[in-house]
Order: sequence, then C-alpha cells, then structure tokens
Amino acid sequence: VKIFDTTTWGRVLTLDDYVMLSTRDEYVYHEMMTHPACLTHPNPKRALVIGGGDGGTVRELAKHPSIEEIVMVEIDGMVVDSCREFIPETACGMDHAKCNLIIGDGIDYIEKAEAGSFDIICIDSTDPLGPSKGLFTEPFYRKAYEVLREQGILMVQSESPRTKVHIFQEVYTFFDKIFGAPNVHCMMIHVPTYMPGTWSLAFCTKGLHPIRDVDRERQELFLANEDLNYYNKAIHEGAFALPGYVRKLLGKS
Amino acid sequence: VKIFDTTTWGRVLTLDDYVMLSTRDEYVYHEMMTHPACLTHPNPKRALVIGGGDGGTVRELAKHPSIEEIVMVEIDGMVVDSCREFIPETACGMDHAKCNLIIGDGIDYIEKAEAGSFDIICIDSTDPLGPSKGLFTEPFYRKAYEVLREQGILMVQSESPRTKVHIFQEVYTFFDKIFGAPNVHCMMIHVPTYMPGTWSLAFCTKGLHPIRDVDRERQELFLANEDLNYYNKAIHEGAFALPGYVRKLLGKS
Repeated sequence: VKIFDTTTWGRVLTLDDYVMLSTRDEYVYHEMMTHPACLTHPNPKRALVIGGGDGGTVRELAKHPSIEEIVMVEIDGMVVDSCREFIPETACGMDHAKCNLIIGDGIDYIEKAEAGSFDIICIDSTDPLGPSKGLFTEPFYRKAYEVLREQGILMVQSESPRTKVHIFQEVYTFFDKIFGAPNVHCMMIHVPTYMPGTWSLAFCTKGLHPIRDVDRERQELFLANEDLNYYNKAIHEGAFALPGYVRKLLGKS
Repeated sequence: VKIFDTTTWGRVLTLDDYVMLSTRDEYVYHEMMTHPACLTHPNPKRALVIGGGDGGTVRELAKHPSIEEIVMVEIDGMVVDSCREFIPETACGMDHAKCNLIIGDGIDYIEKAEAGSFDIICIDSTDPLGPSKGLFTEPFYRKAYEVLREQGILMVQSESPRTKVHIFQEVYTFFDKIFGAPNVHCMMIHVPTYMPGTWSLAFCTKGLHPIRDVDRERQELFLANEDLNYYNKAIHEGAFALPGYVRKLLGKS
C-alpha cells in the first residue's frame, strides 16, 4: 500500500504499484459502479461490496435512500486503515451508518452467504493478481448470481478492453453463461489514472435492462439532490454505447 | 517529426515529441472526426482538412460516396513525406483521387477561400504550439464559419478536458459566439495514446443537429459497407453524452 501526493492527479493510492485511485478522478469509477445499478433496480435495499477498501463505492451506494445496509468485505485491513488516515474523501463511506465493514475474504463470504440475500453486488477488485485472482473465475460469479435476489444486479470491474484483452473477453464469456447473454451489458468508463484511460464495468442482471428499466422519476430526484461529477442521464445511456473494437472483442458484429 | 515502432501501440508518429498517432488506435480520432459530420450533413460534397498530415482524416472522408473533393492543407511537407514512407495505413488517404493536397498555411488558405465553398471543414491540428497557435483563435474559426456553405459543419480537435482545461473552455466560448450555443456540440472520444486518454472534438453546425438530423438510411448503408473499428450508431449518440465534470467546464449545469 502506497499513498502519495501528485501534482496533476491529487492524492494517489497504489496497491502492488498499480494505481487504485486518485482523488482527482476516483468519482468516475465509483459513481459508475453504483448509480446506474441503483437507479435501474426498482428498490435496492441490501448491497454487498467485495473489495473496495478505499470506501468510494460504499460512499456512493449510501447516497441512495432505499439502501438500508451495505455489507463490505475487504481482505486487506491495511488498505482500509491507510485510506482512513490519508484519503478521508473516500474512506468516509466506511463510517456511514449503513455500512457493515468486514475485514475478510470476499470469496469465503460469498461462498457462505444466504441465497437471494442481496439486491446489488459490486465486485470492486484490483487486477486479477494475488488474492483477487479468485474473483475473476466462473465459480465465484456463479455464487454471486445465487446470492442475488430476484431482479438483482451484479456490477464487476471488468478490466480494460485496450490492455487486458484476454481477461476482458474471458469474464464476459463467464457472465454470458451464468446470466444469459441478453442480461449482460458492458459499460465503458474513462478514468485517466487507470492506464490507458479506457476501462470497463460489467452490468449483469436477473432480467432488468439497464436503459429500458431505469426508474426515471427516482433518477431525476437523485440527480437533483446530489452534486455528481460524472454520472448523469446522458452518461447512463452513453456508457453502454460500445465502440466497434469492443463489440468485436465481445463477438458482437 | 519522429516515427518509431512500439511494443504495445504499433507504429507511433510524434511531432515536437507529442504523440500524433499510433497505428493501433488512430482510427478512433479519424473515424470520429469525419463520420458523424458526413452522416449528419444531408449531402456533403466538398470537404476541407486543415492539418492532418498523416492522411487519416482524408482516408475516412473519402469513404463517403457523396464527397467529391477533399482539399487538404498541411503546413509541414515533412510530415506528409514521412507518413508516406512509414505509415501507409493513413497516408494512403492522400493518394485518393478525391484528395487535392496543398502544402501550405491553413490560416492563409482559409483567409482567401471563397465564402460558402465547403460543406465540411475539419481542423485536424496539433496542440496550440508553433504554427498551430493561430488555429485556436476566434478570428480563424470565424473565417471557417464563413467558408462553410449553408448546413455546413465545422469539426475541430478541441483538446482534452482533463489536461488542457483552459484551452478547452476557451475554444468553446469562441464556438458559442460564432455558431450560437445551440449549434455547438462537444463529443468525447477515447484514444489511449492521447494522454490522458480522454479527448474532445467540437461539432459546430449552421443549424443541423448531430443526433436528430442524422441521415439514418445513409448511415445504415455506410456501416454495412465499411468495416470500422470505433464509429457505429450507438457511439454516434453516445459520444455526445458529456460527463458531469465536462458539463461543468462548459457552464452547462
């Protein structure tokens, strides 16, 4: 865990020398990991975050009034402690009354979790190295599917289609198998400090459509109440517009 | 002018040590600089390219059957010669029968050009350094406006809203003044080798709307005939979805 100040990107957190967040653009990833799912689900109450030790994902989930509890399972207590000390902007999420923070193994947690017990699950992991490796597997995503309630949504950090082509393609074949291809949607997000800037999130559902099923009224109200830096109505739709090269990688002509 | 081979991004062209293109992602910029405009304009016949010495913009413009002539004015003959020798993938555009290549000063050219003589103008310039400085000025864009025919479209490389915030904001104030704010549209494009990956193009019109006025039939036919790597129907719309931070920079709440 390293945290340092930079001239251009604010305070930066790295794990194993990979940039995990910069305070100047962390909102892109955290807003997009959470708001499209929360506003598509008709009434999300319980959310599970695997990883996400900086607290940003919890911070954004907690903004939704319907969310009653957020269980966050982070394997690395040192990340949590370091962020609490040096990156309060995101760590504040973990001190929210709705947050139930567990320092432990997310794979274990999901293995033992009750079937149909969460509305939204966010896999907010590092690249598939070390303890994160098991998060990029078909059995893990299948357990996540089972732990989702009816109408549940699984959000997954699905790497960059520019530089992690193989992993990117592989996880979408897992999602297609588990959720059925029409329920699997790829979103593009653009985070300068996640080299090469182009990144992806998977939006997997038990039948909901991320654009047709958006709760427009709740979305409007939410946007009127929150001062966000990336997410808005247009971006909610635009993020699902995939460039030709991404469609080709996913086998969509 | 430097051209070299890289392990990740193919062959790369730099001018004054700024990356101008890599053969692995040049299509993003070139497809988006041209196809949205050509398919929004009802019948584009004459196009003008200022800069664009690698030939990629001309290559894409030439794909549109209605385009009869492309005047390309590039100030630096050495860029053209170098690309012809080492980057035939883009330089091929300049050998197209429709292309009328002029080695000269684009500012001079547009100063003397007949009013209402082009349907589409693409300002395909480097950053505002050296000879490109004069391309980022209100008088230059005003001349471009005059040189456009009725229903004409001006496309401009408008820098990154992440790292060139001041220039980005300034040029949009120029466009708003000249074209009128409802005719000025900002597109986001994502080019890994244009650090920090997030870039913008301005789409300025004499009344056409870049989404409502797309010629759907021609677009369909075009996409069926061309094997593109970035542009498609969804991206045409999605590129105009601006993240919150960009809307704020442009004074749109």
